[in-house]
Amino acid sequence: MFTFAGNMSTIIKHPKNSFTVMNELVLPNDTNTLNNLMGGRLLHWMDIAAAISAQKHCNRIVVTASVDNVSFQHAIKLGDVITIEAKVTRAFHTSVEVRMDVWAENIPSGSRIKSNEAYYTFVAVDQSGRPIPVPELSPETEEEIELFAGALRRRQIRLILAGKMNAHDAKELKALFFNE
Amino acid sequence: MFTFAGNMSTIIKHPKNSFTVMNELVLPNDTNTLNNLMGGRLLHWMDIAAAISAQKHCNRIVVTASVDNVSFQHAIKLGDVITIEAKVTRAFHTSVEVRMDVWAENIPSGSRIKSNEAYYTFVAVDQSGRPIPVPELSPETEEEIELFAGALRRRQIRLILAGKMNAHDAKELKALFFNE
Amino acid sequence: MFTFAGNMSTIIKHPKNSFTVMNELVLPNDTNTLNNLMGGRLLHWMDIAAAISAQKHCNRIVVTASVDNVSFQHAIKLGDVITIEAKVTRAFHTSVEVRMDVWAENIPSGSRIKSNEAYYTFVAVDQSGRPIPVPELSPETEEEIELFAGALRRRQIRLILAGKMNAHDAKELKALFFNE
Amino acid sequence: MFTFAGNMSTIIKHPKNSFTVMNELVLPNDTNTLNNLMGGRLLHWMDIAAAISAQKHCNRIVVTASVDNVSFQHAIKLGDVITIEAKVTRAFHTSVEVRMDVWAENIPSGSRIKSNEAYYTFVAVDQSGRPIPVPELSPETEEEIELFAGALRRRQIRLILAGKMNAHDAKELKALFFNE
Amino acid sequence: MFTFAGNMSTIIKHPKNSFTVMNELVLPNDTNTLNNLMGGRLLHWMDIAAAISAQKHCNRIVVTASVDNVSFQHAIKLGDVITIEAKVTRAFHTSVEVRMDVWAENIPSGSRIKSNEAYYTFVAVDQSGRPIPVPELSPETEEEIELFAGALRRRQIRLILAGKMNAHDAKELKALFFNE
Amino acid sequence: MFTFAGNMSTIIKHPKNSFTVMNELVLPNDTNTLNNLMGGRLLHWMDIAAAISAQKHCNRIVVTASVDNVSFQHAIKLGDVITIEAKVTRAFHTSVEVRMDVWAENIPSGSRIKSNEAYYTFVAVDQSGRPIPVPELSPETEEEIELFAGALRRRQIRLILAGKMNAHDAKELKALFFNE
Repeated sequence: MFTFAGNMSTIIKHPKNSFTVMNELVLPNDTNTLNNLMGGRLLHWMDIAAAISAQKHCNRIVVTASVDNVSFQHAIKLGDVITIEAKVTRAFHTSVEVRMDVWAENIPSGSRIKSNEAYYTFVAVDQSGRPIPVPELSPETEEEIELFAGALRRRQIRLILAGKMNAHDAKELKALFFNE
Repeated sequence: MFTFAGNMSTIIKHPKNSFTVMNELVLPNDTNTLNNLMGGRLLHWMDIAAAISAQKHCNRIVVTASVDNVSFQHAIKLGDVITIEAKVTRAFHTSVEVRMDVWAENIPSGSRIKSNEAYYTFVAVDQSGRPIPVPELSPETEEEIELFAGALRRRQIRLILAGKMNAHDAKELKALFFNE
Repeated sequence: MFTFAGNMSTIIKHPKNSFTVMNELVLPNDTNTLNNLMGGRLLHWMDIAAAISAQKHCNRIVVTASVDNVSFQHAIKLGDVITIEAKVTRAFHTSVEVRMDVWAENIPSGSRIKSNEAYYTFVAVDQSGRPIPVPELSPETEEEIELFAGALRRRQIRLILAGKMNAHDAKELKALFFNE
Repeated sequence: MFTFAGNMSTIIKHPKNSFTVMNELVLPNDTNTLNNLMGGRLLHWMDIAAAISAQKHCNRIVVTASVDNVSFQHAIKLGDVITIEAKVTRAFHTSVEVRMDVWAENIPSGSRIKSNEAYYTFVAVDQSGRPIPVPELSPETEEEIELFAGALRRRQIRLILAGKMNAHDAKELKALFFNE
Repeated sequence: MFTFAGNMSTIIKHPKNSFTVMNELVLPNDTNTLNNLMGGRLLHWMDIAAAISAQKHCNRIVVTASVDNVSFQHAIKLGDVITIEAKVTRAFHTSVEVRMDVWAENIPSGSRIKSNEAYYTFVAVDQSGRPIPVPELSPETEEEIELFAGALRRRQIRLILAGKMNAHDAKELKALFFNE
Repeated sequence: MFTFAGNMSTIIKHPKNSFTVMNELVLPNDTNTLNNLMGGRLLHWMDIAAAISAQKHCNRIVVTASVDNVSFQHAIKLGDVITIEAKVTRAFHTSVEVRMDVWAENIPSGSRIKSNEAYYTFVAVDQSGRPIPVPELSPETEEEIELFAGALRRRQIRLILAGKMNAHDAKELKALFFNE
C-alpha cells in the first residue's frame, strides 16, 4: 500500500498523535428560524477540527479532499455546546482519513447526545499546493485497528462514487455489503 | 412509494420550481494559508443554497437530514466566484433530495471549472419541528428523469451507511454496483 | 461616447453575459431588534452581487464607484430568502452601470415582494488599481435598450450630485425631470 | 410641515444631541483582492452609525428608509481606520435625515482623506413596526441651518426618484438645479 | 466560606468535571496587518472556552464577571492553531474562577509555545439573570490544590481593584506580595 | 524614565491627540441565550478601540501587550449601543497605556450606564514586528495628570503579576495598597 521510498513515509505515527478536541457554542447566527443549528455550519466546524487533526499527523498544510456521507438525526439547539473529537484513522500515500465523533450538550439541562460520526479525508501539500507523502499511521488500540481496516472499504466507496474505481474491483467493499 | 392520503402530497411540482442559483465571492476569511477556499466553507454555502431549493419545493421550513459524499478535486482561489445551482431531484414522504452543481470561476483570467456535484437531503418540518408530508416531484426532462431514478439508489446507500437497511435488500444499488 | 482605440473596447458584450443571480438567507445577525433585515446588510449583499456582474462584463477586477439612491419600502423578515438579479445596463469608458432587482420571499407563507431596484457603478482596474477600458455593451431586448438610454440620465444625476457637472448641461436629465 | 398634534413632536432636539462617532478598522474580510475596502462593507457600517444617530434623536427603534447617492472616489486600504461622523439634519413627521462624513486614515503613514459624504433616512417605529412621530429638530450653527434647508431639496429628489412626486412640483429642487 | 444551606451547594465537583479543550485556527480576519492574531480576538475565544468550562461546573447559564490581567508576550501567526485548556479552580457562593492555559502551535514548522495563562470569573444565573448558588469544588491533584488556594488571593486583588475591599484586609494577598 | 536618544521620543503628544470614540450596536451574535452581550465580545471591541487610540499616539502599527483586570457588573442587552472612549494615559519607552471608559445605552428606554473602565497596553512595532520607541505623552488636565501618575502603579502590578518584578521593589504600588 505504501511506498517506503520517501523520507516522510518512514516516520510512523499513532492515532493519539493527531487527537484533537474542539468545542463550539451554538450562537444565533449558526441557527435557522427554529433556533436549531444549521447542518452546513456544523460541517464547517467539522472541517476545521478535522483539518487540525490531519495537520498534526502530517506536519504539513492539508486541504480537504472529501467528506463522506454525514447524516443529521437530532436537532441541536441555540446555546448547546458542540464537542468534536477527531483523529486520523489511516494514512495513504499523500492523504489521510480523519474520523470525527460529534456530541451536542445542553449543559443546564444535563442532556448530551451523540450527534454525528463522520469521515473527512485530507491531502498534504507543499507551499505550491502539490501533494506530498505523509507519515504512516500505526493503530494501537482494538478500536483503532478496526477503524484502520474500515478505512480501506470507505476509500473504495469514495473511489466508486467518484467514478474512479469499478465496483467489481472493490473486494473489501463487496465483502462488507454482501457478505461474500 | 408515496402515500396520497394527505393534502400536501397531491400537489405535484417540477424540478424547475425549486431551481436556485447562488453566487458567492471567495473572501479572505473563507481561505486557508494557501489562499484556497476551505472545503468546510463551501459545504456551508451549499447547505444554504440547497435549503432554499428544498424550501421552494416544500413551502415549509426544512432541516438538513444528510449530506452525501462530496469530493474536492480542484483548488478554488481567493477572489473566485462560486456558482451553486440547486434543484430537487425527488420527493419522498417528508423529505427531498437536492442536487447541486458547483462551479468556480476566476473571472479576470476567464477560467471556469466544475468544482463539485453533490446531494443533500432535507426534511420538511412544522413549527414544532415535526416532519410533515411534502408535495410530489414529477421530473420533466431526460436528465431530471435520470436523477429521479438515481435518487432511489442514493437513498439506499444512505440507509445502508446509517445502518438502517441491509445491503441485500438494496436491489437498485446492487444492480448499479455489480451490474446484476 | 467610446474611444475605440484600445483592444478591450472592440469587444462587444450583451446584458445577458453579465446576468448574475444571488440568493441569501436572512440570518439573525442580519436583523435588528424587530427581526427585520437591516438596510446596510442588504446594501452589502447588493454590492457583492453587482460586483460579480460587473466583473463578468469587464473580465477585470472592479471597484465600486457609486451607489444610486436606494429606498427600502418593505420590512424583510428573519428567515426570508433574498434574491438579487443583476446585469450591466451600459458600459462607459472604464466603468459600467449595473442594475439590480431585489426580491424578498417568505417561502413557507408563499409571499414574495419586490423589495428594491437599484443602480451601482463600478470601475474596472488593473493590478495596480488604475482604471482600464472595458468592453462595449450592446443591449438586445426592448427593456435593455430602455435601461441603456436611462443610464445616461442617471450618470448625469451622479455627476451633478458629485459637483462634477452643471445641471444646465444635463440635457437628458432636464428632459426627464421637466418634460422639456 | 410638522403636525404638532402629538406629544412627541413638541420635544425639540438639536443636531448635537444625535452626534455619533464610529471608528472601524479595515480587516481582511472587508477587502477585495486588491486589499481595498469594499464599498458594500462601508455602506453597512454607515447604516449602523446613522441608525445609532437617528435613534438618539428619536429615542425609538428606527429602520432604514433610504440611502442617497454615495460615491467612492478613493481606495481605502487594509489596516486603515474609518471614522464616521453622523448627525440628524432634519426631522420630518415620522422620519429623520442623517448626514455622515466619512474619513479614512492610514495612521502609520499619517495620511487622512475625506472619503464620503452621505445621507441616509430612517423611519421611527413602535414595537409592531408602525411609523410613529419623532421630535422636531432645531438647527443651531450656520452649517446646521444650511443642512436643514438642503434636507428639503434632497427629500424632493428622493420622492421624484421613487416616483412619488412630480418634478414640476419640486420647487426647491428646481431652484437648486436650474437657478430658477 | 460556603453556605451549605442550598441544595446546590451540597453537590461537590472536581476540577476534571469542568475540563474543557478548545482549538481554533487563526484565520485572516483574526489578524492585524502584520498577520498576527489580535489580542482581542484571543480574549473573545478564551471567554467562550471559559464559559463552557464554568457551565460544566455549574450546570447553569453563566455570565462573565471579570477577566484578570492577561499579558501577550508572543506574536501568534495566521494559520497557527490555538489550544485553550480551561478548568474551574474554585467555586465561591454564586461564582467560579476558571483558569486557562493557552498554546499556539505552528504545526507545519513544529513550533509550539505557551502563549497565555489567564483567569476569568463567571456568575451562575437563573433564567431571569439572578445569581444562584453553585456546587462546591474539591481539588484533587497537588496543582489543583495550589490553584484552589491561590484563587482566594486573586479574588482579593479583584475586590481591591474594583474598590470593594480595603488592601489592609487582604491578608492572603499581603503575604503573597510582601512575604509578611 | 525615557531615553531621549531617538528621534521619536522627542515628539511630545497630549492625551487628546489619541482620543478615540467607537460605537457598536449589540447584535444577536454578540449575545448569549439570555440576550446579554458576552464579555468576550466586549473585550474584542475594546481591543480594537484601544489599538486605534494607541496607533494615533504612536503613528505606528501597535500590538496588544496586556489587558488589566476588567470586571463586568451590568448586563448589557441585545440592541443596546456600546460607546467606548479611549485615550493614551502614559507612554513608556516602546509602549503606551490606554484607558477606556465604556457605556451601554438603551436608547428607546433612555437608560445609560457606565459599564466598564479598563486599561490595555500596546507595544509599537516596525514592519518586522520589532519594538520601536514611541513619542512622549504630556498630560494636560488634572484628570490626565492623575491617570499619568497611576499608570506607573498599574505597570508595577502588571510586572509583578507577570513575575517580572518583586513586590518589594514596587514602591508606588506599596504606597497605594498599604498607605505606607
